Amino acid sequence: MNEQINPQIQADSRQLILKKTLDIICGKWRLYILYQLGTEPRRYGELRRLIPEVSEKVLIQELKALTNLGVIEKKSYNEVPPRVEYSLTQKGRQVYPTLLKLTSIGEVFMDA
Amino acid sequence: MNEQINPQIQADSRQLILKKTLDIICGKWRLYILYQLGTEPRRYGELRRLIPEVSEKVLIQELKALTNLGVIEKKSYNEVPPRVEYSLTQKGRQVYPTLLKLTSIGEVFMDA
Repeated sequence: MNEQINPQIQADSRQLILKKTLDIICGKWRLYILYQLGTEPRRYGELRRLIPEVSEKVLIQELKALTNLGVIEKKSYNEVPPRVEYSLTQKGRQVYPTLLKLTSIGEVFMDA
Repeated sequence: MNEQINPQIQADSRQLILKKTLDIICGKWRLYILYQLGTEPRRYGELRRLIPEVSEKVLIQELKALTNLGVIEKKSYNEVPPRVEYSLTQKGRQVYPTLLKLTSIGEVFMDA
């Protein structure tokens, strides 16, 4: 049975996918933070040093947003002093190559 | 002479490239408009019909922004009634495959 998907439902799902994509990519620092995080776990303090341009408040807010989106995960270690690490989730690693290619777009238009 | 690029200049240029990338991609409708435009010239009226969810004001604003960024170009034909067409520039066509791949990111996180 060749079930025809209702065009309106198809258009809506494309919009949702596009919105989810923009949620992950857009925002002044979101992509930059993902680039600095890279594919290895990073301690919070390390991220702070790698991204001096970002305020503590914005960094914490963006890390929380990326965690809620399922792109990164946060691990807290019960140590003294307490240790907190951020790393890409399995899905985050899956899309990371595409995320890295994004700047090829900006490069083409740099002298436009 | 192996001229070492100053790390700060390198970081700045990466930031500029990233900003230019986000200028092109981000914005609720920008990418959606590029997808509807596709790789063939489209008349303004056609774009209006293809994207009913967007107000006339927003569509004109986004087409102007994409033109200023050098991603699309506008051609006006001296006819009665006047004909206006939008199409990807050569650089726009160059990055279009990468733009199309972007939604693969959202797809991975749809059920997150």
